[in-house]
Amino acid sequence: MEFTRRDLLRGSMALVIAGAISEASSAADDPLPSWNDGPSKRAILDFVRATTNQSSPGFVPVEQRIATFDQDGTLWVEHPMYTQVVYCLERVPAVVKAKPELSNVEPFKTVLSGDREAILKLSMDDLFKILAATLTGMSVDQFEAEVKQWLDNARDPRWKRPYTELSYVPMTEVLTFMRSKGFKTYIVTGGGQDFVRQYSEKTYGIPPEQVVGSAGGTTFGYDKNGKPFLTKDPKLLLNDNNAGKPESIHLMIGRQPYAAFGNSTGDRQMLEYTKAGDGERLTMLLLHDDASREYAYGPATGLPDSKVGTFTQELYDEAKSNGWTVISMKNDWKRIFA
Amino acid sequence: MEFTRRDLLRGSMALVIAGAISEASSAADDPLPSWNDGPSKRAILDFVRATTNQSSPGFVPVEQRIATFDQDGTLWVEHPMYTQVVYCLERVPAVVKAKPELSNVEPFKTVLSGDREAILKLSMDDLFKILAATLTGMSVDQFEAEVKQWLDNARDPRWKRPYTELSYVPMTEVLTFMRSKGFKTYIVTGGGQDFVRQYSEKTYGIPPEQVVGSAGGTTFGYDKNGKPFLTKDPKLLLNDNNAGKPESIHLMIGRQPYAAFGNSTGDRQMLEYTKAGDGERLTMLLLHDDASREYAYGPATGLPDSKVGTFTQELYDEAKSNGWTVISMKNDWKRIFA
Repeated sequence: MEFTRRDLLRGSMALVIAGAISEASSAADDPLPSWNDGPSKRAILDFVRATTNQSSPGFVPVEQRIATFDQDGTLWVEHPMYTQVVYCLERVPAVVKAKPELSNVEPFKTVLSGDREAILKLSMDDLFKILAATLTGMSVDQFEAEVKQWLDNARDPRWKRPYTELSYVPMTEVLTFMRSKGFKTYIVTGGGQDFVRQYSEKTYGIPPEQVVGSAGGTTFGYDKNGKPFLTKDPKLLLNDNNAGKPESIHLMIGRQPYAAFGNSTGDRQMLEYTKAGDGERLTMLLLHDDASREYAYGPATGLPDSKVGTFTQELYDEAKSNGWTVISMKNDWKRIFA
Repeated sequence: MEFTRRDLLRGSMALVIAGAISEASSAADDPLPSWNDGPSKRAILDFVRATTNQSSPGFVPVEQRIATFDQDGTLWVEHPMYTQVVYCLERVPAVVKAKPELSNVEPFKTVLSGDREAILKLSMDDLFKILAATLTGMSVDQFEAEVKQWLDNARDPRWKRPYTELSYVPMTEVLTFMRSKGFKTYIVTGGGQDFVRQYSEKTYGIPPEQVVGSAGGTTFGYDKNGKPFLTKDPKLLLNDNNAGKPESIHLMIGRQPYAAFGNSTGDRQMLEYTKAGDGERLTMLLLHDDASREYAYGPATGLPDSKVGTFTQELYDEAKSNGWTVISMKNDWKRIFA
């Protein structure tokens, strides 16, 4: 058979068209469109392929596919201050209104003064007094209503947007992608479980029962009509930082995760615990190295360790020697917010 | 038009056949074939219809469909002794072998003697010493291996069958039926969470992360090779009886159940908490009134209250006045075991 010039042209046109279609469809098929090609994106795609492809030696049965995600600094912005701490500070006026005797008592007096410098200097003890006054003592229902109302109205001062809009699009893509491959996605946060549960479903598609966090106890009782309700206690039951993360994962989930994502020393033990399992495991740390689009803190930024979301050089070295992947916000992410 | 006698015969044959088909298909469609028709079966069917039919005023969105089940005495046999207590007693020889100095120390000495009367008279303090020695102090992995091995080999003395075969078929039908209608089924047990998680998936189709139970803490650490692991602590973190049930439901699930099943005073607050929610709620207590097929204890049996699975007359009265359904094992269940 012989080809005429016209046939060849037709053929190359067909090839061009086929190529264009294939490129378009591979872009449409890309489950992580906000990620630049590179080792981070590849690590996620390779891990999911290896654990969900039935013919792969690393195949994981669907019921064992557990992935855990730190929240503050991993799924959404944590600087300059954890959102829940902002909530607690902004609740102080309402607390003092209900108990006017607190208005001249520290640390409430300082918070009411609005003096940011003085507020930032409050001790941990003072901070705990504020957390106890704003997160405990009320019924679970009342607390949930207060949090929801605040979330609807509060705005981040830098972006002038609701805090729930400051979740990272590349990470919500990872959540959606992993769920589409049969993974159960959990939040495992040092933040308050009851607080995060108020928006986790809407913001991340993660239902309340898949939020593991620091938690106080509750006490069951009856109101004056004999109707049962739960009151939030000031006693800390679970401190979900550092070693508390794997301990709470065991308590609340009862399975070792196959994938874990964090961004600070508080996530170290969760990643170690995840990586210690057999077979394929994915362990990733997000490095905030993008001062212009978000914030910069941690190794290689040239800036001192941050007290909020501490990412030490030591943690960076452990990541490198243990085969954890460090995600560079600056280089790995095409965009950050929706 | 006129019918001949033959036509009429044909017609009645067709009716008979149609009737037979419809009966067979309705038996095949019956999601609760081990239940006799009666108020208990009807309560379950009515509740599921009302909460899952989109046009019903009681419709519940799928993500809110939470059903909680006590385990001992509700999903499987609890008499004459909770299975986990049998496990602990049968573990004592291995514990003493590892620590021979315990062989002359009470209560271990009594347990080793095999004197059933003396063992049944052990105080709660003594029992706690046995639980602490057999349920804590080892790694989570070691404990899980010990429980699995025991479950494979232990036999109930009355039925000569593995304990996991003493689950109630009518209740596993309820679990399967409710799951098929979008309910997430949870075990909420006073028994040990880590113990129940070793068989819940195989026995009830309930994964470990949906088992809420009494729990000690764990401590994260590293073995001599630097590999992370969790050790089971003797400190009780969650006591999942009485008020502890709704408190743990809030901690572990974060949603109020729409349905709750129990069989003793330890389940009272869970049922109250469930019933306190808006809309349709299903609250059921299983009464053990069938000495010949299983055991009889509780009201209307003429026998004294049992210490194991206490079902008082007071609880019975509360059930009746609150609209909870009392399931009669004797009258409501066609069969008990598989």
